[in-house]
Amino acid sequence: MPSSRQVLLAARPVGEVKASDFEVVEVEVPEPSENEFVVELTHLSIDPAMRGWMNDVRSYVPPVGIGEVMRAGAVGRVTASRHDGFAEGELVRGIFGVTEHAVSDGGGVDKVVLGGASEATHLGVLGLTGMTAYFGLLDVGRVQPGDTVLVSGAAGAVGSVVGQLAKIKDARVVGIAGGPEKCGMLVEELGFDVALDYKSDDFRSDLRKHTPDGVDVFFDNVGGKILDLGLARLARGARVVICGAISQYNNTGPAPGPSNYMMLLVARATMAGFLVFDYADRYPEAAAEMSKWLSEGRLKSIEDTVRGDVGSFPEMLARLFAGRNTGKLVLELDR
Amino acid sequence: MPSSRQVLLAARPVGEVKASDFEVVEVEVPEPSENEFVVELTHLSIDPAMRGWMNDVRSYVPPVGIGEVMRAGAVGRVTASRHDGFAEGELVRGIFGVTEHAVSDGGGVDKVVLGGASEATHLGVLGLTGMTAYFGLLDVGRVQPGDTVLVSGAAGAVGSVVGQLAKIKDARVVGIAGGPEKCGMLVEELGFDVALDYKSDDFRSDLRKHTPDGVDVFFDNVGGKILDLGLARLARGARVVICGAISQYNNTGPAPGPSNYMMLLVARATMAGFLVFDYADRYPEAAAEMSKWLSEGRLKSIEDTVRGDVGSFPEMLARLFAGRNTGKLVLELDR
Repeated sequence: MPSSRQVLLAARPVGEVKASDFEVVEVEVPEPSENEFVVELTHLSIDPAMRGWMNDVRSYVPPVGIGEVMRAGAVGRVTASRHDGFAEGELVRGIFGVTEHAVSDGGGVDKVVLGGASEATHLGVLGLTGMTAYFGLLDVGRVQPGDTVLVSGAAGAVGSVVGQLAKIKDARVVGIAGGPEKCGMLVEELGFDVALDYKSDDFRSDLRKHTPDGVDVFFDNVGGKILDLGLARLARGARVVICGAISQYNNTGPAPGPSNYMMLLVARATMAGFLVFDYADRYPEAAAEMSKWLSEGRLKSIEDTVRGDVGSFPEMLARLFAGRNTGKLVLELDR
Repeated sequence: MPSSRQVLLAARPVGEVKASDFEVVEVEVPEPSENEFVVELTHLSIDPAMRGWMNDVRSYVPPVGIGEVMRAGAVGRVTASRHDGFAEGELVRGIFGVTEHAVSDGGGVDKVVLGGASEATHLGVLGLTGMTAYFGLLDVGRVQPGDTVLVSGAAGAVGSVVGQLAKIKDARVVGIAGGPEKCGMLVEELGFDVALDYKSDDFRSDLRKHTPDGVDVFFDNVGGKILDLGLARLARGARVVICGAISQYNNTGPAPGPSNYMMLLVARATMAGFLVFDYADRYPEAAAEMSKWLSEGRLKSIEDTVRGDVGSFPEMLARLFAGRNTGKLVLELDR
């Protein structure tokens, strides 16, 4: 019988995830029941949000259960189908999990037409990553021409798109990233006006210097000290978009909150959280616009595709949390 | 020569204000120059925001300078005038300072027609306190019928008005205050649905129990732990109104920020700061509505008027920060 490997959550991680928090198991390749199909995954999306899904706390989705396949978005090809809507050979995208094969009833699954873009791009700029950047910046952040937009985690999957979208909307963009290489890429390849290295000793003074009129939109992916320093720079009427807090996800105690939150009052500013899923009915409109910008060269997809098998998932997460990726981190499955 | 006493800021307070942070000086009663008038103050508004005005930090108004008269809102009577707009004998309200007599050019001063309400009420429900509650709850918090509204500092000047306005708007109101007396007053006199004593051992579980469907509007006057606990109760689409953080104003280090701010993301919620001054052009509309509700008995003015001379200002502030007041704290000047 052909076999298939899956990664199960074996334990609730404490702090950084360890290999022993997961178990790799070998199962038979599943057969579809009526109204189901089987997908062989080719590309797995590696996302900061995964860390939260492993915790047993109230959140926007239930936690992954111990002994369950780890949740993950992925692209793959239908290998067997008893579902009228999905035929063998079709390329699909969905929350299939960290597994070589998944069975699906089609819920939350859409078909992928590559159209010149890679599978990684369909998980990144044209996937939930891009949708997050699009709705977070345009709808939640309400960016306007001439705004100063501050983006943290700017060399990450979402941040790299946010900054480029802000440029398309005629804003001035200040990115924050770790290290001179990422900062150089943001300015030279993606057209950010400024990129500041948060690991530099001059970071605080650089941030002040490069936001002389304050920050109109602060798109925060990282939380912690950078969130606090950004709050101190808010311009009157600023919008703070809370997209993530990757610097805090491995905390073992309560995360420190942003000391400077009273700047919201001084600046008459708003801090809003959002979840991309609430915009699902507008994904097609956004994806069409993003595709157009990609094809015009106004938007670049920065991808970090690593080849490996599903068993390398814990290492991929560690790579993400150590900031060793640039742009969208994707695990391309070697078979 | 008749003399007048004033309270000057003598030192930047560290932590709680001390009597030695102020100096009481005796000066001649001023004479008005052309286009000026002199006010003899009768009632001084004692507000949490005063503590922030003493710190040398960037905020929405410049700090009070060392050696300057301490800033305060007040009501008083014009005793001499060379100003066409203000005649001797008129009752006026403005930011006159902690002083027995003030000279004014009329900037930011309005005339008070008591209309059956006391001077304290014109500093409280009908003054900036009431305006803060009105615009904070209705405009920033966008309260809707059926909402659950959580108010911290609920027995304070702003909080006691916020809760009553929320009832007028057909919301369910949960107040947080310190001690059984204040809590009893909120429910029995002001019609709050529930009042929770944050000093009680059961406070956390009581808060959960009395917000079974979460909190739609959280109007926070206190910051600190109560802000954090309130954030953990947000309903989807909640609005958090940041009005103040009295529990943190005497901190000597950076205030701890709200650890639970990521609940903004989980709940797709918004946290907004505001300053009442931005609504100045709508004060007349709000004051007219508040007056009507007062006269109909739907809104009560809770006042804590203490008689004393300007020299008792530091004690009044200490009273406020110890939570020993209920409702609007006013110093009625004894001459």
